[in-house]
Amino acid sequence: MSSRLISFPVINRDRLIHSIEELAQIGQIGSGGVRRLAFSAEDICARNLVQHWMTEAGMIVRVDAAGNIIGRSSGLLPEAPALATGSHIDTVPTGGRYDGALGVLAGLEVARVLQEQNLRLNHPFEVIVFSDEESSMIGSKAISGRTVADPTGYVTLEGINIQSCLEQVGGSWGDLHLAQRHRQDMVAFLELHVEQGPMLESLGQEIGVVTGIVGQRRYLITVRGRASHAGSTPMSMRQDAMVAAAQIVLAVNRLANAHGEQVATVGQLQVFPNAANVIPGRVEMSLDIRDLSNDRIDELLNQLQREIATIAAQTGTEIDSQIRLRNEPAPAQEHIQQAIVQVCETLGLGYHHLPSRASHDAQEMAAFTDMGMIFVPSQAGISHSATEYTTPEQCVQGTTVLLHTLLALDQYYAGGR
Amino acid sequence: MSSRLISFPVINRDRLIHSIEELAQIGQIGSGGVRRLAFSAEDICARNLVQHWMTEAGMIVRVDAAGNIIGRSSGLLPEAPALATGSHIDTVPTGGRYDGALGVLAGLEVARVLQEQNLRLNHPFEVIVFSDEESSMIGSKAISGRTVADPTGYVTLEGINIQSCLEQVGGSWGDLHLAQRHRQDMVAFLELHVEQGPMLESLGQEIGVVTGIVGQRRYLITVRGRASHAGSTPMSMRQDAMVAAAQIVLAVNRLANAHGEQVATVGQLQVFPNAANVIPGRVEMSLDIRDLSNDRIDELLNQLQREIATIAAQTGTEIDSQIRLRNEPAPAQEHIQQAIVQVCETLGLGYHHLPSRASHDAQEMAAFTDMGMIFVPSQAGISHSATEYTTPEQCVQGTTVLLHTLLALDQYYAGGR
Repeated sequence: MSSRLISFPVINRDRLIHSIEELAQIGQIGSGGVRRLAFSAEDICARNLVQHWMTEAGMIVRVDAAGNIIGRSSGLLPEAPALATGSHIDTVPTGGRYDGALGVLAGLEVARVLQEQNLRLNHPFEVIVFSDEESSMIGSKAISGRTVADPTGYVTLEGINIQSCLEQVGGSWGDLHLAQRHRQDMVAFLELHVEQGPMLESLGQEIGVVTGIVGQRRYLITVRGRASHAGSTPMSMRQDAMVAAAQIVLAVNRLANAHGEQVATVGQLQVFPNAANVIPGRVEMSLDIRDLSNDRIDELLNQLQREIATIAAQTGTEIDSQIRLRNEPAPAQEHIQQAIVQVCETLGLGYHHLPSRASHDAQEMAAFTDMGMIFVPSQAGISHSATEYTTPEQCVQGTTVLLHTLLALDQYYAGGR
Repeated sequence: MSSRLISFPVINRDRLIHSIEELAQIGQIGSGGVRRLAFSAEDICARNLVQHWMTEAGMIVRVDAAGNIIGRSSGLLPEAPALATGSHIDTVPTGGRYDGALGVLAGLEVARVLQEQNLRLNHPFEVIVFSDEESSMIGSKAISGRTVADPTGYVTLEGINIQSCLEQVGGSWGDLHLAQRHRQDMVAFLELHVEQGPMLESLGQEIGVVTGIVGQRRYLITVRGRASHAGSTPMSMRQDAMVAAAQIVLAVNRLANAHGEQVATVGQLQVFPNAANVIPGRVEMSLDIRDLSNDRIDELLNQLQREIATIAAQTGTEIDSQIRLRNEPAPAQEHIQQAIVQVCETLGLGYHHLPSRASHDAQEMAAFTDMGMIFVPSQAGISHSATEYTTPEQCVQGTTVLLHTLLALDQYYAGGR
């Protein structure tokens, strides 16, 4: 493989960086941020630009029923499944220029390099722009066949129904099942994304080799005590829901700290009645746990359940929890991780294996095909913010690793393993 | 004194209970509760009724600049200062029939007993209905001379300014200083009130001998961490404001529990941005501390400040606190407590000494005259609720103790001590 690497040109730095800057102008907000909500006018404008660029790069472009944009360059092998990359171009309400956009534009840059080198892969090469990653993930979920039948679950922040949203971008709610794809249609999916965390920067490494996308469980925990007068109720006669909730917060933090790889967070907490002179009668709090290992998640939950029983008994409160979300862990294929490592070593780039603890479209792709992800650093670990930043050099490094890993995988799968 | 007690008739049970029921019909809401916000139409209706009853009981009635209703029966000693009782008839938005109302109607019943027995005290006897106890306490604060000059601090829940409010009830914002009274005008103030806490019921005692009204400090504590992605930020790199806040909640609880008499509460807590998938970047929380001893409050605050410094260092957060309220403790005079005890022993009523950890108009009276309070039990400690309940028997017991303690104090002060 190394001899082939040498014979391949590097990606076009200026073209890549210029594309990132041009796309960031659509929905630009103050201080360099981007507001490009899925299905908004800005999103549609950005979708049109990317489709135009795909066509220029010689790709055949289609939009599936879920509104996913799929640019495709044909391969050498007849009827081979596609080798795909991609990401998303929608943003959170106050987002940055790199989250999602980098993966799409890096895929586009690979297509441009292939075009200008007049190269064809063995497999058809696809760049996918997934619909609405930041909210419903309806695009990648439709491809994996995991959307739900009820359209009310997909209403946008602005209250627009999903039927209208899909129609606007050339999709169709009624045909959503047609967006589903299968192993015979896609041999592997490789996504480049900004880390959105501080690990690579803190370790001084250029490339993250993603070991998998963590599984996630989310619970609503409700603590019921007894609201009473903060003056006239002696300490010994209180059933203070906030005191019990505080103990749960610390138990969660301690249990998650005991495992190096796990994260667990109480991010949302509401107190009732929430008055300075009333002992809290009820607290509702979120619990979010993420780990590559379902077993470790179960272990934390079991330990927490035991501690919660003790806390309830000691504080005179009732505590129950309801599951609100469950995503299974999606491990990245070993041979894809190895391909990324080999490219990094050949190019002399420092790398670090790490899980993705954020959700990505790649998680849905893993349901039916081989999956891998490449991370590049996020300055100070910041994402979902106007101050999100990855240097041009890091964008170029990530795109180069994407290009060469795709080439390696094209060989790997063409060789019948 | 005991020989005089025997010669005195008991209060009129039916008249007292009927008055409580009649007043409760003004502003009655479902399930027995009362909504009689200060200066509302209901409050004005209730004020008119009480003034009518005072006049019937032979009292001279005036309304001072702060809207306080003062019913007065002249005394035997020329130019003696008044011996006063009273409370309030306004309620919280969803209040009960006893909080405040009992103290006013018990005072009225004492006046009625004096009238029908054709008795005059040595001192002028006053029953005071204080304005707006539940919110601004402007009535008792005006009498103690502790109102503030800025009227915007007294806008009602409905957004009505204090000038209009006072005008409606016969007061005058511009003359507020004229409401102030001094020691030479009032020899002592004794208030009967429901406990609003569970102590008397849990101890099975009929009468609470209030040792004083606790001092109160209220703080706004702000914890500043760093908001970041609940997935991609490893446990070891977090600055989680909620984890720090939880430690503060537990430190407050532990320190207050270490003192039998003290209470400290975190009743209000808000998380920012308060999303399940974002590590809390900021938490704002209230701290309310009440104790009869300012020294013990200072001691708790000093210990807490040391713990907070440790918590901030360990969690990588910045924590600051701002004082929002400070009320000084108001001890009840020893000789008034003794008079209540002696009456209870004579009448065979069980009593218990306890501080009032809720605020009362009596707290303001203590600024310039001798003060005492008598508590009767609150069922299950509940107050500020439609389910607030004190039995007719307990109301009668409290009123009887009020009557006989006032008679004893009238002797005490007339004797030049």
